[in-house]
Amino acid sequence: MNELLLKEIKEQPVVINKFLNDQADYVNEICSKLIGQYDYILIAARGTSDNAARYAKYIFGSLNKVQVALSTPSLFTIYKNPPILKRALVIGVSQSGQSPDIVSVLKSANEQNRPTISITNDESSPLAKVSDFVINLGVGDEKAVAATKTYTASLTALALFSCYLNNEKNQLKELLALPSKIAKTLDSALERVETSNRYRYMEQCVVIGRGFNYATAFEISLKIKELARVIAVPYSSADFKHGPIATLNRGFPVIIVAPSGIMYKHILAFTKKILNLGVELIVISDNEEILNLGKTAFSLCPDVPEWLSPITSVIPGQLFARKLAIDKGFDSDNPEGLTKITETY
Amino acid sequence: MNELLLKEIKEQPVVINKFLNDQADYVNEICSKLIGQYDYILIAARGTSDNAARYAKYIFGSLNKVQVALSTPSLFTIYKNPPILKRALVIGVSQSGQSPDIVSVLKSANEQNRPTISITNDESSPLAKVSDFVINLGVGDEKAVAATKTYTASLTALALFSCYLNNEKNQLKELLALPSKIAKTLDSALERVETSNRYRYMEQCVVIGRGFNYATAFEISLKIKELARVIAVPYSSADFKHGPIATLNRGFPVIIVAPSGIMYKHILAFTKKILNLGVELIVISDNEEILNLGKTAFSLCPDVPEWLSPITSVIPGQLFARKLAIDKGFDSDNPEGLTKITETY
Repeated sequence: MNELLLKEIKEQPVVINKFLNDQADYVNEICSKLIGQYDYILIAARGTSDNAARYAKYIFGSLNKVQVALSTPSLFTIYKNPPILKRALVIGVSQSGQSPDIVSVLKSANEQNRPTISITNDESSPLAKVSDFVINLGVGDEKAVAATKTYTASLTALALFSCYLNNEKNQLKELLALPSKIAKTLDSALERVETSNRYRYMEQCVVIGRGFNYATAFEISLKIKELARVIAVPYSSADFKHGPIATLNRGFPVIIVAPSGIMYKHILAFTKKILNLGVELIVISDNEEILNLGKTAFSLCPDVPEWLSPITSVIPGQLFARKLAIDKGFDSDNPEGLTKITETY
Repeated sequence: MNELLLKEIKEQPVVINKFLNDQADYVNEICSKLIGQYDYILIAARGTSDNAARYAKYIFGSLNKVQVALSTPSLFTIYKNPPILKRALVIGVSQSGQSPDIVSVLKSANEQNRPTISITNDESSPLAKVSDFVINLGVGDEKAVAATKTYTASLTALALFSCYLNNEKNQLKELLALPSKIAKTLDSALERVETSNRYRYMEQCVVIGRGFNYATAFEISLKIKELARVIAVPYSSADFKHGPIATLNRGFPVIIVAPSGIMYKHILAFTKKILNLGVELIVISDNEEILNLGKTAFSLCPDVPEWLSPITSVIPGQLFARKLAIDKGFDSDNPEGLTKITETY
């Protein structure tokens, strides 16, 4: 009890490094075959993988200048009237590769003669079988029910794909340098998270991220709901400050994801604004200025480029959610209400 | 105080009927000019309008078989590195037409020679000026700060657009019959909402909808946050039952949006499952079977086809959010933290 999840969180630097070594050449090969085959990318995913898809909107959009659409699987499975996917490259993301929803989208794409790729931790899964190309995460069994290493590995797979779509050497160099920075972030967060049980009676919270880290806000929020059974609401600061900000009051816990980069100053301005409302801030950043505003502060390893920061910035959130679950007396390895395969058909 | 919003909620059947009469021919004309011009639709929107965009994913996807992507405006405004929009039809939705984010997306689409449409309540707004075609909601000033009639009118505009893209007479006939059914739903919900102040001390809730009514769950949730300052979390039942369901406990308030249609039996099965956890159900439906499961039940007018049900099913939610705000002692016409124009740049 409460050991499996921690073990898998700690494996992240090693398994991501292994993934990059094992799959880089193959991803390069896939990308070379796809040139000129599509005008936009459609991604099908659920749960944690859907948060990886949110990340893809930003990396493919800004680094590859490709528009991304997220699929609505019920059109394929329940309404049984799927859209025409002309000019789409279709990517399915599912750690188990078992989700019937995601398999249905890829099957339909196949029938429509669209190129398909799956990103999965099981290369013999039903999803892999209906895909033209299979990017195997290969991070080993994820025995804890909540997904952690498969999430960061999925982000890494999408980032690697982005590098080779551009064939941009500097971008790839940044990615290959990431595993050691993940390790540093992990060590620092592990040390920080154990020192406090301040949030034992927290009953709700908001998680704020924007741009590349919009996905991080969703994923941290999901881990908190799954593991600690606390209502956590993810938001872009842009959307939150118009309307939903009215829900905040004195002492309300707000988690801020604010690594350095172009978005930083916008998140900082937002953070100062809500601090005036007397909220309690939990800050995840590599910048002392905003870390100093937090009642609780998680330091990220510096010098991670913004486009890769979601792979490190989620880690303190994973550990925070696990600690909160344990403080509340729940089994973090086998949360109630969660199964490994999201059979959402 | 507490009169403007109610007045505007009540105007919905009349202004939507007027919108349909005024704009049908023009929307028909737009659609005839767009034949063969695009392979997918990109929608740019924020806040309430973003929920209208969520509806569009389902109607265009299932009724027109066109894939929809939702834009990430920060790629245009903050990262200043927008995607290439080849083969996209670009639609901006903004009641004020002032949002700089949305204007930026349409401007970029223009520069890329993509066809652009705006759906707005101000035909002389900056958004209208950068659009090839302007669908004017024409519902009159929305003086209450929370958007209600502009939301249902935006859904209606998207539904009308879907009818003419298909040029399908039966679909159009269903839409033209809607205003009287909106009126019946409104009357019934007005009567129901006034009889209870049971939720005065509600501090959080979940709102469940799926398929066409995924958008409704988001919009009701947003109104509750804005007006009543209560943390409300929207979810698809498919996503909620894997993981987030762990947050539910005895007495937890769950709003279920479950109009008749293909999705109904799936929502019913989900509802029975969570009822076993002892949650308190607030049900919005036209089906007695599921209404009977609710501690509070809002009856929808029957015989509304599922694809149009989001235009009626949101109305009890608007009234519920307003009543909750008043019960909690807030001014429902001028909620704190909300301004009419979402300057999210």
